[in-house]
Amino acid sequence: MNHIRVGIAGFGTIGRATAQIISTHADLIRQRSGVQLQVTGVCRRSGVKSSDIPSGARAVSDWRKVVAADDVDVVVETMGGTGEAGELVRASLTQGKPVVTANKNLLAEHGDELFALAASKNLPIGFEASVAGGIPILRVIHESTAGDRLRAVHGILNGTANYILTEMENRGIEFDQALAEAQKAGYAEADPSFDIDGLDARDKLCILARMAFGGRLQVSRILTAGIRHIRAIDIHSADRLGSTIRLVGCAENTDSGLDASVRPWMVNRRSMLAKVEGVNNAVFLVGDKIGTQMFYGRGAGGDATGAAVVSDLIEIARDLAAGQLRAKRVSGFQDSEDLTICKNPRPVSWYLRLTVKDRRGIVASVAEVIAENGINIDSLEQESQASKDRVSFVITVEPVSELAIRAAVEKINSFEFMVEPVLQLRIE
Amino acid sequence: MNHIRVGIAGFGTIGRATAQIISTHADLIRQRSGVQLQVTGVCRRSGVKSSDIPSGARAVSDWRKVVAADDVDVVVETMGGTGEAGELVRASLTQGKPVVTANKNLLAEHGDELFALAASKNLPIGFEASVAGGIPILRVIHESTAGDRLRAVHGILNGTANYILTEMENRGIEFDQALAEAQKAGYAEADPSFDIDGLDARDKLCILARMAFGGRLQVSRILTAGIRHIRAIDIHSADRLGSTIRLVGCAENTDSGLDASVRPWMVNRRSMLAKVEGVNNAVFLVGDKIGTQMFYGRGAGGDATGAAVVSDLIEIARDLAAGQLRAKRVSGFQDSEDLTICKNPRPVSWYLRLTVKDRRGIVASVAEVIAENGINIDSLEQESQASKDRVSFVITVEPVSELAIRAAVEKINSFEFMVEPVLQLRIE
Repeated sequence: MNHIRVGIAGFGTIGRATAQIISTHADLIRQRSGVQLQVTGVCRRSGVKSSDIPSGARAVSDWRKVVAADDVDVVVETMGGTGEAGELVRASLTQGKPVVTANKNLLAEHGDELFALAASKNLPIGFEASVAGGIPILRVIHESTAGDRLRAVHGILNGTANYILTEMENRGIEFDQALAEAQKAGYAEADPSFDIDGLDARDKLCILARMAFGGRLQVSRILTAGIRHIRAIDIHSADRLGSTIRLVGCAENTDSGLDASVRPWMVNRRSMLAKVEGVNNAVFLVGDKIGTQMFYGRGAGGDATGAAVVSDLIEIARDLAAGQLRAKRVSGFQDSEDLTICKNPRPVSWYLRLTVKDRRGIVASVAEVIAENGINIDSLEQESQASKDRVSFVITVEPVSELAIRAAVEKINSFEFMVEPVLQLRIE
Repeated sequence: MNHIRVGIAGFGTIGRATAQIISTHADLIRQRSGVQLQVTGVCRRSGVKSSDIPSGARAVSDWRKVVAADDVDVVVETMGGTGEAGELVRASLTQGKPVVTANKNLLAEHGDELFALAASKNLPIGFEASVAGGIPILRVIHESTAGDRLRAVHGILNGTANYILTEMENRGIEFDQALAEAQKAGYAEADPSFDIDGLDARDKLCILARMAFGGRLQVSRILTAGIRHIRAIDIHSADRLGSTIRLVGCAENTDSGLDASVRPWMVNRRSMLAKVEGVNNAVFLVGDKIGTQMFYGRGAGGDATGAAVVSDLIEIARDLAAGQLRAKRVSGFQDSEDLTICKNPRPVSWYLRLTVKDRRGIVASVAEVIAENGINIDSLEQESQASKDRVSFVITVEPVSELAIRAAVEKINSFEFMVEPVLQLRIE
């Protein structure tokens, strides 16, 4: 069986791009991989425009019909969400059909159960498209670093947030304007919270960390902060320090456990992280033997994500054609224990921006709290004074533990002269 | 059979690193991959130090004994060269044993024959380690971009040359000093020609281009120039232009065929290529759907290359354990036609450095040749005058075809006032 028939459930941007790649690159795929892919069924609850229906395919509105169809060998899940998408994956596997999904949310929340079901049916789940779009980072972790002890995986995992930060940086605009423009350009959703509050990056980091370090991890264990409170003044301060700001997901396997967080970092402008601009993503792997590797590319978008879906389909099709389809053992999702969370991550430097009502003694009060928590100030500068009621101070401190800086920030936030909470950036 | 026994033929840096990774990471590999690797035989013609012999393994001096041993399931070829290494790969496959090799030279020259033999025996050849050390670029091309039409593959493919260029750049030293230091540090061979004349990068580019574009390609069809003639003055001129110099292998699939070359480029200091420093490698893939991807990491060294060998071993071991060992179809090496070579690559800008004996009328003579070939000068500057007998001019020209610039350079080289041939860099 070299001719593999594909059903696509969820026919939005990614589903349509997947169908389009399969159709326009059919000859190329056959030539390079020796398999022939054909889309035989597509499904969208709200209906499919007839011009979008791939030639030779049926369009239905109930995904159950795609899963059950006799002429569907592999099911692609691009519906999103965790409810019906989960039902679909379960139904496909139960009916003996392998699945390809682009759904990080589903895997971060229900991965254990779904991979266990796949193993019990000896069927693969392809999920390369679920993290970092077109960058084949999961395959790299699964296959290429399987013999190495990984120490860290970190990177820029959300293209929307990175687009907003680089627009703020390049054009000196405020966050609100950059967000509005990203929404207008189709890079951000009407409700942008998932992207700008770090939740999307958190789900991706969760999958990466589980695979890299071989253990279970609840997303709730990942400390998560977004970029909603970053202002032009912060970009400006970063610039003065030869740096810029990036939203970074980082999972580090320390001797005392896993240190996992998603939050904005201030990074040197000469660093590779700073070079990642616009909607691109980059993932860094650090291993004992491989050293530091970086994988860079488009993190989202129909074409890049669709190409990742198709790469999974080709792998499954090759195995199907050879009569050798089988479940893959997915490190971190099967027979695994919980990863131990590190209670006191290694000290790093921090940037704090305070917005206060101007009055005497503010610097003394803040400096006292910082000293009380055993923290050394590296620099302190009044950055701007828009009005008496809104003065910004920027403080950088020497490396200190997360616990100490958090205690200091909490105390500072309680001062009545604070106009808004402290903005806290990790300095790398 | 979850317990896979490995024989290593050629026990130099990479062979020893491979054995060491298998032994120190045995538990990790079993846990993450579900297979157990064990080195049972090692071979080196000049003998193996007893302290280097992996526990439980035999050391022999004839590779035939490793291939023939009953307790060897997979053979690792890390001998190098194309003669005996080729014999070993043939013998292993003929005896039904899959092979893992780190030998780009062997594959660039005999890949067609060896992959055909592997296909006829339905056995895989693992060769991730043959290109760009620890960077899993071959697997990415084979699996992750299988559904996309690739337009270009290019990058920094030789760590030694990159080390020399970045040392020249960072410390302002001359080529000869940088080379001598690289040799002392163990980054360059006593005979450095393979690295600094671009031959190593050419072999790697050949393998990358064959896989990316699905056709046969003789290494002799790749235009190749090295970095031997680059001087501190060129680095200095590049710096003045906000650029630096990198040795780049580039294969571009144009409408009129493949444009493949290895040569020094002048690249903007803000570019990703410029960010690749020291012995690191970086490979860029450009595809219709995936856009531009970059893969970065250590390009050589025992640990990184050994980790790539082990990743191939794990993949083979997983298939062996599942009773599903089979040949992989390797695009570009099987049933393929020759790639068409593009006769007139697209115009690019060029940097020319002339070293001349100072006399009247030189600029006029050179400018005339350039004009005769339909080339527009962008800038012309006398860069330094060490003595009357050694004056340097730097010329940059607007985009023009390879053929035109070559004709002009040949004519200029024939002038009696030239002290040494023109140094020619592509400007990107």
